[in-house]
Amino acid sequence: MWFIAPMRTFLLTAAAALLVAAVPAKKLLTPNDIVSTAPASAWKTVSADDLMVMDLANGGRIVVQLAPAFAPVHVANIKALARGKYWDDATVYRVQDNYVAQWGLNESDKPWPSGVTAKPPAEYTRALKGLGVIRLGSSDAYAPNAGFADGWPVAYSSKQGWADLAHCYGSVGVGRDLSPDTGTGGELYAVIGNAPRQLDRNIALVGRVIDGIDKLSTLPRGTEALGFYKDKAQYVPIASIRIASDMPAGERPSYEVMDTASASFAEYLKLRANRHDDFYIRPAGGVDLCNVQVPVRKKA
Amino acid sequence: MWFIAPMRTFLLTAAAALLVAAVPAKKLLTPNDIVSTAPASAWKTVSADDLMVMDLANGGRIVVQLAPAFAPVHVANIKALARGKYWDDATVYRVQDNYVAQWGLNESDKPWPSGVTAKPPAEYTRALKGLGVIRLGSSDAYAPNAGFADGWPVAYSSKQGWADLAHCYGSVGVGRDLSPDTGTGGELYAVIGNAPRQLDRNIALVGRVIDGIDKLSTLPRGTEALGFYKDKAQYVPIASIRIASDMPAGERPSYEVMDTASASFAEYLKLRANRHDDFYIRPAGGVDLCNVQVPVRKKA
Repeated sequence: MWFIAPMRTFLLTAAAALLVAAVPAKKLLTPNDIVSTAPASAWKTVSADDLMVMDLANGGRIVVQLAPAFAPVHVANIKALARGKYWDDATVYRVQDNYVAQWGLNESDKPWPSGVTAKPPAEYTRALKGLGVIRLGSSDAYAPNAGFADGWPVAYSSKQGWADLAHCYGSVGVGRDLSPDTGTGGELYAVIGNAPRQLDRNIALVGRVIDGIDKLSTLPRGTEALGFYKDKAQYVPIASIRIASDMPAGERPSYEVMDTASASFAEYLKLRANRHDDFYIRPAGGVDLCNVQVPVRKKA
Repeated sequence: MWFIAPMRTFLLTAAAALLVAAVPAKKLLTPNDIVSTAPASAWKTVSADDLMVMDLANGGRIVVQLAPAFAPVHVANIKALARGKYWDDATVYRVQDNYVAQWGLNESDKPWPSGVTAKPPAEYTRALKGLGVIRLGSSDAYAPNAGFADGWPVAYSSKQGWADLAHCYGSVGVGRDLSPDTGTGGELYAVIGNAPRQLDRNIALVGRVIDGIDKLSTLPRGTEALGFYKDKAQYVPIASIRIASDMPAGERPSYEVMDTASASFAEYLKLRANRHDDFYIRPAGGVDLCNVQVPVRKKA
């Protein structure tokens, strides 16, 4: 059950359980039931070349799945920055409640490593063609259409032919200054609050945190404007940022994302939009794009 | 500006500022500009009888605005629980990332103080009539209509005549066991993640955190199922929960909420749906209900 069960109610539930044992009823499935019983074929392993592993000096690990299909130049930059040791001495220097945590070098004039494109194009949208979108089936306030493509939440226009990654909880984007600057990739942010979809198509998203977001979401909030830490002593040091494929094979973490084109995901999506089980009595009949977290699991 | 400004870009911006001084351009307004210049008539003071002040033992203060117009019996219970000292020895005992922080006595059989209705009705919706809703003007995935009533985000059906408070970041609700239990009010939760709108019409909302949500959102996440803390030593002690009107007059905090029927709010809402300023270059033309945080400010 999802909320509180006072002890007296536990007793009541135990009594009810005896009745259920006597007269078995059809179990109402939850989204978690679908995830825990999905066949192996419903899962896709994330390439080690698309995993960014960020270790904080305090021992916390944050793992980001990169999205080269949506922002190829920015993602290539991030790999070059990691491999070129650009982020030695990087910190988390901004944490704004219900918005973002941001890290990098902050106002540095350190030269870009080789392989970095200093002024990438505005990779805010891409062609819808070739994405193979699974429709959300609910309305979206920010775009004509919404759905899922290869494991990612996307907003799109089937008429105009564009698609973009949606800013959801855990999304990782590239900090930038005013337009036409698109950011190089040295400063990154992760969403730690309600989906700030107004950023869609205004900034480059490069991936999402798939493990350890709580290592960012629990950090103290900065007290300066926009959540910047007031004193450098508050900055949270980052020990290393690596691409998993550059790590020794035995140390690489590995993850699987549910295939959004699978029958399991279709069932999961349907249940997310129509919660109806022992706890939920009034299904909404709809669901917000960012409220359908695509299932991810760590491989042993 | 909203994101990162490397030092070299600051220099660029300074040069651009000189140009702007020579050729003044029309300033593009942001939602914050509307809030900071709204007249006194656009603000309404929250009654001290509708403010719940929760002080953690670590010094953090969380202030909740109660919503008696939506859940009158549950809100009356909460006032009776505070006045009857029910929450002496209460703790925050559950913090689930991207979901809720929950507090109370957890599995206690402590008797209810006088004035508490042990089994309140299911105050999950109320009559739309009498609310005077301002329309959101964007689509909503969870209800036929959405908007704002007396400062609150609401979902509603103009055809069927019901309305409910929406589960947004900061919303406070009443923990319950399985239906038809509606919860008495002893166990409360606050949303600390993406709006869990699937809970709408399935649980009683009684208000929202209007100050100090970061004191909950930064707490360590519980490692047991549903974010419960594993050891009682991890529970976060609550020093007191009081209704502001019961506090000495000189100690009461006081807040103003923007009148959602005011011209200022109409302008704010329009800009939230159409961000277009020095940073935002592609306005969405729509906005999610929970992404229009109704402005709140503390009175001196």
